[in-house]
Amino acid sequence: MLPDPPLIAILTDFGESDWYVASMKAVIARICPQARSIDITHNVEPGNVRSAAFILSQCYSDFPRGTIFLCVVDPGVGSERKPVIHYDGDYHFVAPDNGLLDLLKPGMCRCYEIENLRIDPQIRTSNTFHGRDIFAPAAAMLAAGHNPGEFGMALPKFAHEGIEFPELIGLPTKGSVIYFDTFGNAITNLRITRNSPNPEAVLLGGGERIPFAKSFSDVAKGKPVAYHGSGDFLEIAVNLGSARISLNLEEERNFECV
Amino acid sequence: MLPDPPLIAILTDFGESDWYVASMKAVIARICPQARSIDITHNVEPGNVRSAAFILSQCYSDFPRGTIFLCVVDPGVGSERKPVIHYDGDYHFVAPDNGLLDLLKPGMCRCYEIENLRIDPQIRTSNTFHGRDIFAPAAAMLAAGHNPGEFGMALPKFAHEGIEFPELIGLPTKGSVIYFDTFGNAITNLRITRNSPNPEAVLLGGGERIPFAKSFSDVAKGKPVAYHGSGDFLEIAVNLGSARISLNLEEERNFECV
Amino acid sequence: MLPDPPLIAILTDFGESDWYVASMKAVIARICPQARSIDITHNVEPGNVRSAAFILSQCYSDFPRGTIFLCVVDPGVGSERKPVIHYDGDYHFVAPDNGLLDLLKPGMCRCYEIENLRIDPQIRTSNTFHGRDIFAPAAAMLAAGHNPGEFGMALPKFAHEGIEFPELIGLPTKGSVIYFDTFGNAITNLRITRNSPNPEAVLLGGGERIPFAKSFSDVAKGKPVAYHGSGDFLEIAVNLGSARISLNLEEERNFECV
Repeated sequence: MLPDPPLIAILTDFGESDWYVASMKAVIARICPQARSIDITHNVEPGNVRSAAFILSQCYSDFPRGTIFLCVVDPGVGSERKPVIHYDGDYHFVAPDNGLLDLLKPGMCRCYEIENLRIDPQIRTSNTFHGRDIFAPAAAMLAAGHNPGEFGMALPKFAHEGIEFPELIGLPTKGSVIYFDTFGNAITNLRITRNSPNPEAVLLGGGERIPFAKSFSDVAKGKPVAYHGSGDFLEIAVNLGSARISLNLEEERNFECV
Repeated sequence: MLPDPPLIAILTDFGESDWYVASMKAVIARICPQARSIDITHNVEPGNVRSAAFILSQCYSDFPRGTIFLCVVDPGVGSERKPVIHYDGDYHFVAPDNGLLDLLKPGMCRCYEIENLRIDPQIRTSNTFHGRDIFAPAAAMLAAGHNPGEFGMALPKFAHEGIEFPELIGLPTKGSVIYFDTFGNAITNLRITRNSPNPEAVLLGGGERIPFAKSFSDVAKGKPVAYHGSGDFLEIAVNLGSARISLNLEEERNFECV
Repeated sequence: MLPDPPLIAILTDFGESDWYVASMKAVIARICPQARSIDITHNVEPGNVRSAAFILSQCYSDFPRGTIFLCVVDPGVGSERKPVIHYDGDYHFVAPDNGLLDLLKPGMCRCYEIENLRIDPQIRTSNTFHGRDIFAPAAAMLAAGHNPGEFGMALPKFAHEGIEFPELIGLPTKGSVIYFDTFGNAITNLRITRNSPNPEAVLLGGGERIPFAKSFSDVAKGKPVAYHGSGDFLEIAVNLGSARISLNLEEERNFECV
């Protein structure tokens, strides 16, 4: 069930200027030298669990079956929040139980508390760096073939609820901006499925009508466009520019889709 | 001809804050689990194909023979620009045909359009993320041993022309700044070869005379120096400082080399 | 003694926007294709050897025995400073002899100058990019099984002195801020050991009394806290905020620990 070599995908808010991510990878290399890692990102806004949850939701199903996700956006480190292992039948997720896993697809899953890491006597301890001392060792041990049940008790929440974004199913409808990417493209909360109608335009208010098209390049340079994004949400962009800046957008900005 | 393990070098303008690079690597891990990747950079200015072409030209020949370059700076995604595989006898380059490969060394090469990826039924499709849906799968399939000819028709442009920067061959001569690195060092368009004379100085205009020397440390702290850069171009730096800031330089700034 | 696969940890001030790190990894892939690498960070402030030394000191002992550290913060490149290989019995460190290794734990070690890299005829040469031309090849050759003595003469400094930060052993005592991490947490120079007493508070002057506790979450949101940090130094943070900004701290800021 594990890929060969085992694969650990890492998502944190640790930034790229300190040694924190390296310490986690060093611990993994000690416990499971053959494991590979892929960085999702380490630039989540510090402590922004909701943003991390969205980023994870957008990419985890691209990974091979058996990938272990090591997710450490953990503003409550050292408090009563629990470190957990969540298994959805395809993937393991090692994370604090603070909402980081709320946007995974709904479905049956198993969840275990990480209580016992004394399997490895080399592990350091601290009250403030559980990424190095708890989450990375747990992920590495899973990669080395340990079972989630070895780490602690199963938690009662066996059916993962997930949070669903609204399906774009009738027009007109209202939506809002939930995420900006590096390019300044705005990802909205309107999920596009096979049942979704093709919108004609997005109305931001103030009279601006943004046409719906297939891609950026269907409009002239500097012009706005709405489209079916690569993560199956409605997105708003400006061709060869930044929608965030040009359209003066911000998170939670509401719009109408017609 | 492929290195063991296969090696994919990745160059994009996707930044490091979203999941886009991770999704590409996830797709690669699914198609060719044994492939390794090296990030060239993901911080190319969004859509700046020319800058990406220069960065690629500066490092590709450092890589082992058989390396596959996955280059996605693709402001025209979804338009009529073609995704291609370019093979120069040593390396494969997977990229849009938008100029990103124009600075490779001139020479015979083969070029194929990527038309057919249905080899892998798991591949997602989108109009805006061909990095994940076309370029990464193609690179991974090459790494897994597929031949470029399996992806589509050979394109007529068999002889790669390349763009040559002028050789520094007589003095005095004029040059211009083409790139600034992280340190604020200015890389110029004057290519230094075995036939190049040793300049005495660079004149920026306004009377400033920048001496030519072997390295930064040949001048005092804070002083400017011109030198034979590590990529065999004439460069201008300030010892323990930033030439870009201290000398108030900008791209395309002209100078005289004497 | 080498891990399998061999592991090279890389620390530079090259940033992540140019091709410099990629060129080093490309050279490593050519010389020792099976070697893995872990990035410590490439965002050290340009030329800040002291900051690099601190970062290295905080994480190197997390790595598996036999890891090779490739450390290139080298503002004196091209000058008389020597490239060296330092072996402490557990790890190899490849670096300029400019102070970058001064914060390793004290103890016996061997140190060799890197004089002879002609082992590999493919290596390029330059006066300004010894990361690619000297340090990376040396690290890769160590990873491929070469001995440090093959590169040059042993240097007389056999006993590594290290720089010790003061142990927190009596109260009250004075301390100072030495490093800020991405979160704005302040790491101080007071080293906490088994012999250290538990402080009650940190006094910044001006009447502010920062309580000592176990973790951020022991104080209310936005409140400051001092604690035993994950690297065994006294640290100062603000729960869910930045101590650097909220407390208006800067490096070398003095305080009293009571």
